[in-house]
Amino acid sequence: MASKATSIDIAYRAGVSQSTVSRALRNSPLVNPETRQRIQAIAKELNYKVDKNASNLRTQNSHTLALLICEDPTNDDSLINPFFLSMLGSITRATAQQGYDLLVSFQQLSSDWHADYEDSNKADGIILLGYGDYMDYEQKLLKLLEQDTHFVIWGAEHNNKSVLSVGCDNHQGGVSATEHLLSLGVSDIAFLGDASSHSPEFRDRYLGHVSAMKAKGIKADKRKQFDAINTEASGFDAANLLLDKGLSFDGIFAASDLIAIGAMRALHLRGVRVPDDVAIVGYDDIPVASFANPPLTTVKQNTRLAGEILVDSVLKLIRGQAVSPQLIQTELVVRRSCGESDPKA
Amino acid sequence: MASKATSIDIAYRAGVSQSTVSRALRNSPLVNPETRQRIQAIAKELNYKVDKNASNLRTQNSHTLALLICEDPTNDDSLINPFFLSMLGSITRATAQQGYDLLVSFQQLSSDWHADYEDSNKADGIILLGYGDYMDYEQKLLKLLEQDTHFVIWGAEHNNKSVLSVGCDNHQGGVSATEHLLSLGVSDIAFLGDASSHSPEFRDRYLGHVSAMKAKGIKADKRKQFDAINTEASGFDAANLLLDKGLSFDGIFAASDLIAIGAMRALHLRGVRVPDDVAIVGYDDIPVASFANPPLTTVKQNTRLAGEILVDSVLKLIRGQAVSPQLIQTELVVRRSCGESDPKA
Repeated sequence: MASKATSIDIAYRAGVSQSTVSRALRNSPLVNPETRQRIQAIAKELNYKVDKNASNLRTQNSHTLALLICEDPTNDDSLINPFFLSMLGSITRATAQQGYDLLVSFQQLSSDWHADYEDSNKADGIILLGYGDYMDYEQKLLKLLEQDTHFVIWGAEHNNKSVLSVGCDNHQGGVSATEHLLSLGVSDIAFLGDASSHSPEFRDRYLGHVSAMKAKGIKADKRKQFDAINTEASGFDAANLLLDKGLSFDGIFAASDLIAIGAMRALHLRGVRVPDDVAIVGYDDIPVASFANPPLTTVKQNTRLAGEILVDSVLKLIRGQAVSPQLIQTELVVRRSCGESDPKA
Repeated sequence: MASKATSIDIAYRAGVSQSTVSRALRNSPLVNPETRQRIQAIAKELNYKVDKNASNLRTQNSHTLALLICEDPTNDDSLINPFFLSMLGSITRATAQQGYDLLVSFQQLSSDWHADYEDSNKADGIILLGYGDYMDYEQKLLKLLEQDTHFVIWGAEHNNKSVLSVGCDNHQGGVSATEHLLSLGVSDIAFLGDASSHSPEFRDRYLGHVSAMKAKGIKADKRKQFDAINTEASGFDAANLLLDKGLSFDGIFAASDLIAIGAMRALHLRGVRVPDDVAIVGYDDIPVASFANPPLTTVKQNTRLAGEILVDSVLKLIRGQAVSPQLIQTELVVRRSCGESDPKA
């Protein structure tokens, strides 16, 4: 053989995939012993030299975690959304507390996160925040699994149980928001937020809303669900659309605080009073929620705990310890946007 | 020679420092041509192989910037302070817009940032945010200069003009805060914040305050300067100390919004009304400043612009383009904590 042997040559000769070769050469228990020995024999025969970076993969730690932020590209590109900024702060802090550095990257374009970060030994593991296009994202997750990448995703639990996720219990959060409105006698509720599989977290909040309604014998009216992405502008537009339709409603459950704040602005401009005419609940408890006018009742996602669990989970993966998806309980924060004042305020 | 030659061997033979050897081997113009040739001849004679990572230094870009956050270790370790969080957001975004990744690290312990980041080819350049202990920090900056590191610092301009800095004009900010108080007839002003060379930004704000007073023929009373670091707790304590001293005052200029918010809490608990009894101005315009009770008049540091200029500056350094220290103008944001309402609100 004239040129240097590669793992592709070995895979070809052994009749296995390249990732099986890579696993066999680092003695992974995922490859059965006979196959492992056969692959190692071929590698020896071809005088195959493991690539330095690849060999570093398990033996030399970069002591760095990569945080890949996949923001919805339709977002205003001038600022990170406040929820992600809060997550960035808590993940940065949790990473530092574990003695690691954090490599932050905004990702839309890369097709191979494993090669970009873990294989290149830039990071020992990856935390994924946000989706971009969820369908595209899912394809990349499956590729990461195939490559044995150490990664954890923020958000909804994944159908593939091998994908490690940490997220808030969006279904339960949706239930508690709607139960709160119902407890105040508000039952004609519009939902502002995409409820499709393109936005699994919003969808789960919507499903929680529907099931809380159902528990009270009320059928959620599909016409009162209006798509919105996680921006104020989108919430503003969705509320205007709701008003334009001329449908009745005495409550709004917004899939995020930004949507709620945009909706409140639209209601205000059209002379609809909150909470007198319409009660509104948001989701996230971003810092400005408590300073909205009126202060926004919302479902709090505990970003500090979330950051700690994300970092802890990916480090456990890296160390080969047992891990499983984690759902963080949400907490209803009652302020004044539903007509009830916070007893703690 | 039995063992492999190192740059130390070359330095020893050539009678120069190791960093001169390193410069000469990458043809730096900072080494004169004769010395360069002599060093290169010795390297050849010793069959010296340049370390792969070191040789990558100028030839292969990591397309990553390092952000080293040196937080005051006395800060509450549970959260990043809101000003740094805002800077982290804007630097992350500006870095992404330039097609770079950002490596974020909290730094207290490392003694050699150059080796940790640039020499190891983890990053093409470094942005430094915060000081930790300023004296210790200055030593490290001089070392970075010696090592030809591409770095830019956030904050006060450095005495050594070779240190590239980007910061807000703290002196001018201090002048405008105090001029605002004076314009409202408030002239018996306490300053809450460390005004020593350990906190050069706070010191410059204090010096601006002193010079604005002087311009009106008033001598700032040294007894009314109370040390505080950038936390609410520290502002709370400083205001209590001020009240305990029994000195007169009708205004407070706090060196940061967190200090101002802590001070307002202390005043409130002791029955002192803001703005009726005491007018107060903060500094930074962190997000919660506008939601304080009453909303806080403050000197805004434009973090979005700051992030963009920091990233632009370090990239220019990396590309060998001309750069110079930059001072960003501050902006007085008038709310209600000095008794004047914001005309825009």
